[in-house]
Amino acid sequence: MDAMKKFVQKDAFARHIGVEVLEHGKGTARARMEIGNNHLNSAGMVHGGAIFSLADAVFSIASNSHGTLAVAINVSISFFKAATGGTLFAEAEEVSINPKLATYLITVTDDAGNKIALFQGTVYRKKDSIADIVK
Amino acid sequence: MDAMKKFVQKDAFARHIGVEVLEHGKGTARARMEIGNNHLNSAGMVHGGAIFSLADAVFSIASNSHGTLAVAINVSISFFKAATGGTLFAEAEEVSINPKLATYLITVTDDAGNKIALFQGTVYRKKDSIADIVK
Amino acid sequence: MDAMKKFVQKDAFARHIGVEVLEHGKGTARARMEIGNNHLNSAGMVHGGAIFSLADAVFSIASNSHGTLAVAINVSISFFKAATGGTLFAEAEEVSINPKLATYLITVTDDAGNKIALFQGTVYRKKDSIADIVK
Amino acid sequence: MDAMKKFVQKDAFARHIGVEVLEHGKGTARARMEIGNNHLNSAGMVHGGAIFSLADAVFSIASNSHGTLAVAINVSISFFKAATGGTLFAEAEEVSINPKLATYLITVTDDAGNKIALFQGTVYRKKDSIADIVK
Repeated sequence: MDAMKKFVQKDAFARHIGVEVLEHGKGTARARMEIGNNHLNSAGMVHGGAIFSLADAVFSIASNSHGTLAVAINVSISFFKAATGGTLFAEAEEVSINPKLATYLITVTDDAGNKIALFQGTVYRKKDSIADIVK
Repeated sequence: MDAMKKFVQKDAFARHIGVEVLEHGKGTARARMEIGNNHLNSAGMVHGGAIFSLADAVFSIASNSHGTLAVAINVSISFFKAATGGTLFAEAEEVSINPKLATYLITVTDDAGNKIALFQGTVYRKKDSIADIVK
Repeated sequence: MDAMKKFVQKDAFARHIGVEVLEHGKGTARARMEIGNNHLNSAGMVHGGAIFSLADAVFSIASNSHGTLAVAINVSISFFKAATGGTLFAEAEEVSINPKLATYLITVTDDAGNKIALFQGTVYRKKDSIADIVK
Repeated sequence: MDAMKKFVQKDAFARHIGVEVLEHGKGTARARMEIGNNHLNSAGMVHGGAIFSLADAVFSIASNSHGTLAVAINVSISFFKAATGGTLFAEAEEVSINPKLATYLITVTDDAGNKIALFQGTVYRKKDSIADIVK
């Protein structure tokens, strides 16, 4: 199995909260999360932390897709619409990349195509090889 | 039991990821999360989503502590230091509040007191009563 | 002259720093700023405040384009590449809008088309009419 | 004159918009800006770009105070209260620093002590010496 596939499978927190990765490539990734009772907050809506974590999972895959370790240094997320059930989707797009830093936009939508949140995240790119990390 | 206590207990996602609320009052809240294997990311560090979610749980309690529903509209989080185990703590401080909007700073620390992340979040304050929501 | 044209002309700070609005419509706006010595910071690069202000000017126009007053509540900006001269361009896109809140993405580029910064901003939408404000 | 004093004086954009630096030290800085007509936006309030730029000026000084060049990579700013005149103040606090990255909180207040905005900014720390830059 290639290093990136192993990297995706090793994300224990993403698995714990039900993130299912649909596809990934250089600088991109797409995932879904079926909403269950465990994802809800005190007001019965999908928890901001669950939405962020879904987006963060594809952010991690997209930013680590170039073969070396990327660590998140800053994220800003705007929430547009409360979600209460169904399935949420997150898709990452690479906005900018240089040897040290890279920035991604991740859009979270519901199954009707409504925008739920927009996540803008920046990573610091280290030298460590992903192949070594997943060994 | 008072409405705010019920509100705290109803946070299913916070419970699912192991957030334990330590105290809460008007505009403040403090919580801890013991790190287990479920909180780790593909590189063996605590997942950004887990750190965000711990902070988001106290943000929710602090911003909903005034008796009416608060919904998150924007959060920015900076990550300072990778955490790999032990216990993480999050504490919320109310920076600004008016009838429609309020902003909070949440500091996440590890058990050695190192700063792990700083979370700045803004809510939109609705008219719905917390007492009605938790009924 | 229509209200929106007057609104654009009334932006004293944008004029003070040399922002020139190129076009605007419902939810969008585009502007340019020719870089001079006044825009530089201590290290001889275009000041982050100048880049932000150019983006903020189109954010203001796009978010106020629906006829009622919009006030900024939160902005996150990522800087990708230092600019030192030439002309910078900013273009706003409406990401999400509801009766109370709206969010915009503004991309800042240089004259070679390089991405300089990405600005994600949210406004609170008030009831005040733009026509009354510019009277 | 020492390098840091020269660095402060070389900020052309800060000077252009009327920022006056009051004090600065390792990891901190404080400045003021007297509001004039040039700082206003289309609605007659202090422009978000002017508030950001005041905060950005102290962010730059605080983050460059350790002797090597710091460049902004991300800023998030929340606006709490419209300002229309008087004097605004900005003060920077160093939240976190390591050899590559540092994060600052800058609070903007008016002359009555009201919080106007909170600015959270992260820099990438380069090797270039400030003494060389201001030569």
